[in-house]
Amino acid sequence: MATTLTDLNNASRNDFVMTLANVFEHSPWVAEQVAVKRPYNGIVQLFMAMRAAVEQAPAERRLALIKVHPDLANKTQRAAGLTRDSHAEQDSAGLDQLADAEYEAFQRVNNAYHAKFGFPYIVCVRRRTKASILRDFERRLSNDAAAEMQNSVEEICRIAALRLDQAVTADDRLAVHGHLSTHVLDTHSGKPAAGVRVELIELAELGASRVVTRTSTNADGRTDHPLIGGRPVPAGQYELLFDVGDYFAKRGVPLSDPPFLDKIPLRFSVSEPEGDLHVPLLVTPWSYATYRGS
Amino acid sequence: MATTLTDLNNASRNDFVMTLANVFEHSPWVAEQVAVKRPYNGIVQLFMAMRAAVEQAPAERRLALIKVHPDLANKTQRAAGLTRDSHAEQDSAGLDQLADAEYEAFQRVNNAYHAKFGFPYIVCVRRRTKASILRDFERRLSNDAAAEMQNSVEEICRIAALRLDQAVTADDRLAVHGHLSTHVLDTHSGKPAAGVRVELIELAELGASRVVTRTSTNADGRTDHPLIGGRPVPAGQYELLFDVGDYFAKRGVPLSDPPFLDKIPLRFSVSEPEGDLHVPLLVTPWSYATYRGS
Amino acid sequence: MATTLTDLNNASRNDFVMTLANVFEHSPWVAEQVAVKRPYNGIVQLFMAMRAAVEQAPAERRLALIKVHPDLANKTQRAAGLTRDSHAEQDSAGLDQLADAEYEAFQRVNNAYHAKFGFPYIVCVRRRTKASILRDFERRLSNDAAAEMQNSVEEICRIAALRLDQAVTADDRLAVHGHLSTHVLDTHSGKPAAGVRVELIELAELGASRVVTRTSTNADGRTDHPLIGGRPVPAGQYELLFDVGDYFAKRGVPLSDPPFLDKIPLRFSVSEPEGDLHVPLLVTPWSYATYRGS
Amino acid sequence: MATTLTDLNNASRNDFVMTLANVFEHSPWVAEQVAVKRPYNGIVQLFMAMRAAVEQAPAERRLALIKVHPDLANKTQRAAGLTRDSHAEQDSAGLDQLADAEYEAFQRVNNAYHAKFGFPYIVCVRRRTKASILRDFERRLSNDAAAEMQNSVEEICRIAALRLDQAVTADDRLAVHGHLSTHVLDTHSGKPAAGVRVELIELAELGASRVVTRTSTNADGRTDHPLIGGRPVPAGQYELLFDVGDYFAKRGVPLSDPPFLDKIPLRFSVSEPEGDLHVPLLVTPWSYATYRGS
Repeated sequence: MATTLTDLNNASRNDFVMTLANVFEHSPWVAEQVAVKRPYNGIVQLFMAMRAAVEQAPAERRLALIKVHPDLANKTQRAAGLTRDSHAEQDSAGLDQLADAEYEAFQRVNNAYHAKFGFPYIVCVRRRTKASILRDFERRLSNDAAAEMQNSVEEICRIAALRLDQAVTADDRLAVHGHLSTHVLDTHSGKPAAGVRVELIELAELGASRVVTRTSTNADGRTDHPLIGGRPVPAGQYELLFDVGDYFAKRGVPLSDPPFLDKIPLRFSVSEPEGDLHVPLLVTPWSYATYRGS
Repeated sequence: MATTLTDLNNASRNDFVMTLANVFEHSPWVAEQVAVKRPYNGIVQLFMAMRAAVEQAPAERRLALIKVHPDLANKTQRAAGLTRDSHAEQDSAGLDQLADAEYEAFQRVNNAYHAKFGFPYIVCVRRRTKASILRDFERRLSNDAAAEMQNSVEEICRIAALRLDQAVTADDRLAVHGHLSTHVLDTHSGKPAAGVRVELIELAELGASRVVTRTSTNADGRTDHPLIGGRPVPAGQYELLFDVGDYFAKRGVPLSDPPFLDKIPLRFSVSEPEGDLHVPLLVTPWSYATYRGS
Repeated sequence: MATTLTDLNNASRNDFVMTLANVFEHSPWVAEQVAVKRPYNGIVQLFMAMRAAVEQAPAERRLALIKVHPDLANKTQRAAGLTRDSHAEQDSAGLDQLADAEYEAFQRVNNAYHAKFGFPYIVCVRRRTKASILRDFERRLSNDAAAEMQNSVEEICRIAALRLDQAVTADDRLAVHGHLSTHVLDTHSGKPAAGVRVELIELAELGASRVVTRTSTNADGRTDHPLIGGRPVPAGQYELLFDVGDYFAKRGVPLSDPPFLDKIPLRFSVSEPEGDLHVPLLVTPWSYATYRGS
Repeated sequence: MATTLTDLNNASRNDFVMTLANVFEHSPWVAEQVAVKRPYNGIVQLFMAMRAAVEQAPAERRLALIKVHPDLANKTQRAAGLTRDSHAEQDSAGLDQLADAEYEAFQRVNNAYHAKFGFPYIVCVRRRTKASILRDFERRLSNDAAAEMQNSVEEICRIAALRLDQAVTADDRLAVHGHLSTHVLDTHSGKPAAGVRVELIELAELGASRVVTRTSTNADGRTDHPLIGGRPVPAGQYELLFDVGDYFAKRGVPLSDPPFLDKIPLRFSVSEPEGDLHVPLLVTPWSYATYRGS
């Protein structure tokens, strides 16, 4: 359960540090350094202080911070136990349920990365689909060590921001969440399309695609809840699947047999996990259109 | 090699019958009956005469005609030998390359149909995808015998029309061919999109989908040849896949990383194998639209 | 200045009647009848009571109510003085600024209506454009007297609801307002189009069309205020004019000379003055689309 | 009536020159120079020869050629008599039917041009609408004399090409014609929209707009003849007006009252008189889209 910023401002130094000890993985020293600068007037200010502490730490300390992070999708480490945060984060990207081909791909790039840089590959897994992580992995493998030190710290700060956001409530917000929504407009009847079944699927390249959510449109042609909200929208490739054949058949609209359009797939990529992305469908039984809205 | 209608009109009765002996499967008697009414002033007139001969034949003869047809996707019969026409027709629908689950489904419905009606299920396989054949199969299983006698003759005549069309050239044409085409319009630059890779895929339900054709758009945004032409467009479900990510990247258009739209799937069904169906794509890097054109 | 419902509930009978005396034109008796049923727990309940008083009044009283209404667009009556409400209402529809041809058309149908029914034509002018009033006028001319008595009462109640809504504030709302909005999405860049000049024009048939509002889109591609809001959206024909040539030129997008699209008109009709109507524009320099949204 | 290139190749020198004497206004010397180089194997080759003769003529001869051209829209010259070609050309752009404001605008720029350059403003009026001519006029007024000498020769050659194309038939063609077409697709029913009334209007800025053509769509959703074809499509601004309210009402489609969409205007500019421009309409009673097609 999240504590409040006010509580943290008033807490003993010890309680403050214990609460924030794992915002940076296994690194209570970050919390220790910023405890003295209390009170903080917002969570953004607190986070900026923690980030500054990391960026201004001696190089060997930053390297140590990098090295305490677990490997991605490493079964041995997993069996031996991860921090609760790391565990939940890796699960969120589906790294606990890899197909054999995916598992092998992760092992291969993990090993290559370790061999080249001497430290583990770190990425904020809540911000990417597993296919997108593999791509990022391979791209970063070609960097030099200095660039990867920097990239690692950047990703560690992204992980920390999400952990802090979950741990502490405040009046202000860290900009760590995105929003993915849809809207179905029936341009045959000129009204929002209600009761259309919608599926959001995260596309994989090696293993199986997985359904992120199944829902139906409401009277306004929208979904009651955003398809993804209250968290980053993981960068990667998705498919929205709309069951418009069933929708028009139920309304008694004359259709061909089989219907020209039945399940319509919209395939698109997310590139900004903290952005608002709206992917609507304008549809008749014989035509449709979509666009990137906001 | 097709013979000409003029040749047929002038041929000996024997040659006429030999040429057309298998237009109706294993049934030279149809050709025999219509030989005497020569000359024919067109292939349509010739076909109407053959069709009339079948429809006016005694019921037992029509039943015999039905019974000489092979089962669909029957490996034993296939090994024992089919007419060259039947062989080619079954191959055209991919019935020679079934996945195990599909093979079993065909066997199951074949047996059930045989058990109920006492004659084989007949369908003009050049007019349907294999998934569509299975659907048709199950739908017709619920008919009564009289309806199925009629449906079988109807399908036999469709098979015959296509065989006659291949065997004989004339000034007029039997209406047995359809046409499937596409067109990619780049509404970002206001020009036809040239060089877009396009794939047409026939969707299956039980086995694997299969690529019907791979091509690229020409300077006019069209394909040099229709996606399907000069034959019926098999009823069933298809997907067109357009590689627009690559197209816009090559033109130097600013894109997100990964691109919002990369490979765009348009999924649609064909319901009229002899019709002209046009499925265009209007596209920018951020939006697209399609419609059933003609 | 609007008074509150609480004030009215607590006011003396005299003050109550004086405040609401002209909700029904020159007819304080309606307010008198409903004063005794106070307190009202909402403005909807108050209006329903007033409406019931009118509908249950003796026929001759309803006829008298109809007859005290002024003619539409009657210069003589206008010079002699209208109630402040009637004056403002007629101005809102532009009836104070008629072209000669329009003035003559109004006179002609006014006279014909009077001659046939013996009472003035009444319409809630805030709910229609002047062209739409003329059309309604001519359509109603063919009704019989009973139907027109009923139509007149219906329109009087609509006028009254709007007057009551302006006169009294309460926690609940009468459903007398609509909403017209737009949104410009630049599908060339995949972003909302900011800074597009937009004009909303009310189309006339006889006289001049008139500009309802001129504005520009904000960073979200919308207008800061609805094009029409906080009042009924008058039924009638409109044109939205978007200056997209200027917008794309300023962004440095390559265009033809002259630009293929410059000022884009969207012409549409409003049929539900109390509804929410959204008319968006999806646009590139070479294509556009619109639809009735909500 | 047009003569053939073969006839010209075989004609006497005198007949050859007489036939082509006015291809360049009042300048038989051009034809005289190229007569000796016969035979020509195509009309393109003949035109290139005439063009070369003009371009290689001494400067004073080119200036004289420019000066023998009449002023645009000059009533006095018109009364005194123009060449038949000039007369027809000016009529084609509507220069014989100017509103007062337009006439004055033409006089003003004519005089200013004359005063600055000492020769008349020349433009190939078949390639521009009258509004577009006025714009071109004002733009060219700011050039220097050398540029205007060159522009004048360029326009004279365009006039000559069109005159030659009308005077002579050959196996090859001069690229002097464009093509404007439309197509209405009813995406409510998934079929081409037949019987939709279509009007093409040339928009003016000072005087009245004028209807170029009125027609209806055929069973294919197209017009039987191109909206403009067999001649240049004059550069300028146009409006296509589609009577879709009537179309959907006749088909019994449920509509609002008044219909949301009634007469749909598509306003666009032509910038390439020799190009093929296709402006289609995809429409339901509640939505529509258009794009620059080809």
